[in-house]
Amino acid sequence: MNKAAVLHIPLSQYSFAYGERELRLRLRTGKGDADEVRLIYAVKYDWLTDRKTISMRKSFSDDLYDYYTVALDVPDSRIGYVFHLNTGGGEYYYSEEGLTRSFDHAKGYYSFFQYPYINSSDVHGKIGWCREAVFYQIFIDRFCRGDDNKNLSYVNKKWGELPEPKDFFGGDLKGIIGKLPYLHDLGVTGIYLTPLFLSPSNHKYDTIDYFRIDPMFGCEEDLKTLVREAHSRGMKVILDAVFNHCSSRCAQFSDVLKRGKGSPYFDWFIIRGDFPDLEKRNYECFAACSYMPKWNTNNPQVQEFLLEVTKKWQQGCNIDGWRLDVADEVSHEFWRRFRREVKGINKDAVIIGESWHNASPWLRGDEFDGIMNYSFTKACIDYFAEQTRTAQEFCDRLSEILMRNTDQVNEMMFNLLDSHDTERFLTLVGENREKMKCALAVLFFFPGMPCLCYGTEIGMRGGYEPDSRRAFDWDERHWDKDIFQTVRSLIALKKQKIRGGVRMYAQGDLFVIEREAVGLAVNNTEHASVFFAPSGEVSVQPHSYVIWERGTKK
Amino acid sequence: MNKAAVLHIPLSQYSFAYGERELRLRLRTGKGDADEVRLIYAVKYDWLTDRKTISMRKSFSDDLYDYYTVALDVPDSRIGYVFHLNTGGGEYYYSEEGLTRSFDHAKGYYSFFQYPYINSSDVHGKIGWCREAVFYQIFIDRFCRGDDNKNLSYVNKKWGELPEPKDFFGGDLKGIIGKLPYLHDLGVTGIYLTPLFLSPSNHKYDTIDYFRIDPMFGCEEDLKTLVREAHSRGMKVILDAVFNHCSSRCAQFSDVLKRGKGSPYFDWFIIRGDFPDLEKRNYECFAACSYMPKWNTNNPQVQEFLLEVTKKWQQGCNIDGWRLDVADEVSHEFWRRFRREVKGINKDAVIIGESWHNASPWLRGDEFDGIMNYSFTKACIDYFAEQTRTAQEFCDRLSEILMRNTDQVNEMMFNLLDSHDTERFLTLVGENREKMKCALAVLFFFPGMPCLCYGTEIGMRGGYEPDSRRAFDWDERHWDKDIFQTVRSLIALKKQKIRGGVRMYAQGDLFVIEREAVGLAVNNTEHASVFFAPSGEVSVQPHSYVIWERGTKK
Repeated sequence: MNKAAVLHIPLSQYSFAYGERELRLRLRTGKGDADEVRLIYAVKYDWLTDRKTISMRKSFSDDLYDYYTVALDVPDSRIGYVFHLNTGGGEYYYSEEGLTRSFDHAKGYYSFFQYPYINSSDVHGKIGWCREAVFYQIFIDRFCRGDDNKNLSYVNKKWGELPEPKDFFGGDLKGIIGKLPYLHDLGVTGIYLTPLFLSPSNHKYDTIDYFRIDPMFGCEEDLKTLVREAHSRGMKVILDAVFNHCSSRCAQFSDVLKRGKGSPYFDWFIIRGDFPDLEKRNYECFAACSYMPKWNTNNPQVQEFLLEVTKKWQQGCNIDGWRLDVADEVSHEFWRRFRREVKGINKDAVIIGESWHNASPWLRGDEFDGIMNYSFTKACIDYFAEQTRTAQEFCDRLSEILMRNTDQVNEMMFNLLDSHDTERFLTLVGENREKMKCALAVLFFFPGMPCLCYGTEIGMRGGYEPDSRRAFDWDERHWDKDIFQTVRSLIALKKQKIRGGVRMYAQGDLFVIEREAVGLAVNNTEHASVFFAPSGEVSVQPHSYVIWERGTKK
Repeated sequence: MNKAAVLHIPLSQYSFAYGERELRLRLRTGKGDADEVRLIYAVKYDWLTDRKTISMRKSFSDDLYDYYTVALDVPDSRIGYVFHLNTGGGEYYYSEEGLTRSFDHAKGYYSFFQYPYINSSDVHGKIGWCREAVFYQIFIDRFCRGDDNKNLSYVNKKWGELPEPKDFFGGDLKGIIGKLPYLHDLGVTGIYLTPLFLSPSNHKYDTIDYFRIDPMFGCEEDLKTLVREAHSRGMKVILDAVFNHCSSRCAQFSDVLKRGKGSPYFDWFIIRGDFPDLEKRNYECFAACSYMPKWNTNNPQVQEFLLEVTKKWQQGCNIDGWRLDVADEVSHEFWRRFRREVKGINKDAVIIGESWHNASPWLRGDEFDGIMNYSFTKACIDYFAEQTRTAQEFCDRLSEILMRNTDQVNEMMFNLLDSHDTERFLTLVGENREKMKCALAVLFFFPGMPCLCYGTEIGMRGGYEPDSRRAFDWDERHWDKDIFQTVRSLIALKKQKIRGGVRMYAQGDLFVIEREAVGLAVNNTEHASVFFAPSGEVSVQPHSYVIWERGTKK
């Protein structure tokens, strides 16, 4: 056995409460190393008198490891536990003292692993509506213009032309409201709006006034109407919280520009010297953008201010959650307060952080519910676009990504093929519609909430920004009907049947992902392949997939 | 190379801010696998234009792994990084996508590891005075009686007799005050007092009134005097916060016993049914002790109440921190609030949790500073008492324990050979004074704060409680002078010279631990052994040790 491969981390994704009386445990071993893994456990105060043993199930594997899992019902949650491994090389115990050939139960209280107690306030709650959620990201300036009576002087580009970085096309909230029946018909259940507060740019990630909707996009009444109308169709609406930075033209930074250290807002930013200098950029900002100074979220006053913003829009407009911009550069302390505020208003509001990386430190139940899952995106790019991964390697990668987080986090992940910050996935796969459809199928089968970037369903193309942010083409004659129908039917399937446990494997060249009642086999090669489905053999064409339901194929 | 052995965990003990502009990183590899490990890093927004490379140092090893470390000065803390390993089997890169033979820097923003930003409010601060701290734990009823005028009717045992579970000997705060010169002379710099609030028991872990010192022990004025007198001698005083549970006789639980669901305190506890029943124990309590009902620290009112207690004693008596009883069964949410309260009053107050296990989830900088390090205790029991570990195995174990936590946590760990909750270490080693002295030497050389249980220095003996809680024998003729002098000189050495980096290894049968300016070689076998010190060979007798300073021996 590869002793160095064995891993368990107490109170992590390897050991977490799933609800108030269910404990879920994982053990990682070297691939193929163990014949059987069992869990020895007890209420820790009864370790010597009342230990139980239960078998663990090999649930996932990647190139190096097997992951064993078990769920325990724990009416008394003060649990001590030790793993017992049967291997070709004999038996091992795995405790806080590592792998040993025997385990001295009499001194177990020093060295068993423990989950000391499930406190309800620490449990990462599941949000019911996330289970069937299908999100749709809207970059507001580019989706639809619904208000022709507004001041249109800022619009410099004709709808349909290719975008340059600073172009304005005129999309707005009224436009979205008008298209709610379209989105509802498509099957979308959640809308993620990129920023809409007062800001000079088309993307509005540089906020001037967090308390005001940008008039380019509409007014507060429009947002209220949008949310109300969305809710009446069973759809959720989440906003983009840009709390890492603001616009250099916002009131607070403007005051500091004027008064330097004399400004009451000086400590709201992180400035070297007595005055901020836009040229020298002697203050912290987003990336290297001097027009986006970074908030000092270590300052309680800044925290209060941003929490006021949170409260205003959540209570005032009844939105259903937040996507957090550049979330990982903001302080953990702030996000914890933010979560308490958000969940205090509505415990079913969802919090999705932007992090392009393994974000497990933010996903322990006290900060975010999920993140924009760019690791999933990258795996799909490797497999479908770059074709640098085989089906087995794609499966390995997705398994490792699932094993980074708890089960409830995986269920609330915002999975995406692309966004306003990436190339369009259809462009990445060389405009190969069949590959695109395969990737969409994986997106909908993978645990979590699929999020479509606006226009994905009609086959929108585009390279890196600004090209990925083209205006939605509402002329149906230009739509890719095949992709559109695929998205529609995948959404319908997701809502009806794609749920529950997940199992992934490669069968030859095929990547297979099974959920409780339905499975998917994808062929991302140039040659047909045979899939041995539960009901018999089925041929899977190049760059194509099959879906089957409980023993039938479709 | 053993690929499955390689481990790095973002934002953990493997990746942490040490101060506001220093980032410390660790990489674990299979033992002996890598010839060289380097870190490739950059401000993540400059990944393509400005990457640097730096060598990492093999700082620790255990039976299975090597641990490489590096410290980076990061004026801009938004760091992306990838590890580069040279091995007998060629080069590898290690990123969020695992071990690969090459790394595509162009897509690095998807897959490098990252430390996104050091926010000052998230940094786990070091406490200056902890660096030289030597703690002394006092079980108040058994240390010294200073007040002969108090009501002594509760005292049922004569000082010096062996204790039964429910005995009272009469020790008190005045007694401790009187012995401050003794403790100061011994060299102690911190006193940890077991509980002293109103309570029916001798241990007082079942609190009746958190706002009142138990008259058996004295009054508030006594505590103030004790702290003032201690401070005047450069000594700190920390109290025991018993916030997991209280006494069933406390006001709140008494009210619930009387009024059941009608009591405003009903939700302050966790009760199944409408009334708590002491016989049926239909409520959560500590272990299986019906007389110690568990506080519901998920209830904000309970949190407020316990924070009031915290504030009263910290502000009112100027204490220097807290030891937290049964800390791991209390909610994380509460401890985060507790930390903000404690550090808000005095940022140099220390917070030590009682956890007998790997407690890294509580040691991320938002809850505790350190824990009572019972894993260290157990390693010492195995090595010195049970002799089930060789010097190499002891070294491996201590290395693994250090690698569980960040460097600042290791510096604030409360290391102990024994406590009021264990057998006396001298008894565990069969009253072998030489072994005891060796263990004490290791205690003082290991990173962190040594904590002596009262009477260790005079050679106090005792099995499991109540025997470990004997009354301190103040008749110097009975003291073990050899142990006493050893403790004194180790304390002096600790304060003068034992600090800085740590290196541990076995040299044959010897266990060796080196600090910046001074080293220790321990022989825990029955035969003499030769130590190859920097200054030449030196013989180390059975169950004995040598200490050397910068090239000299002592």
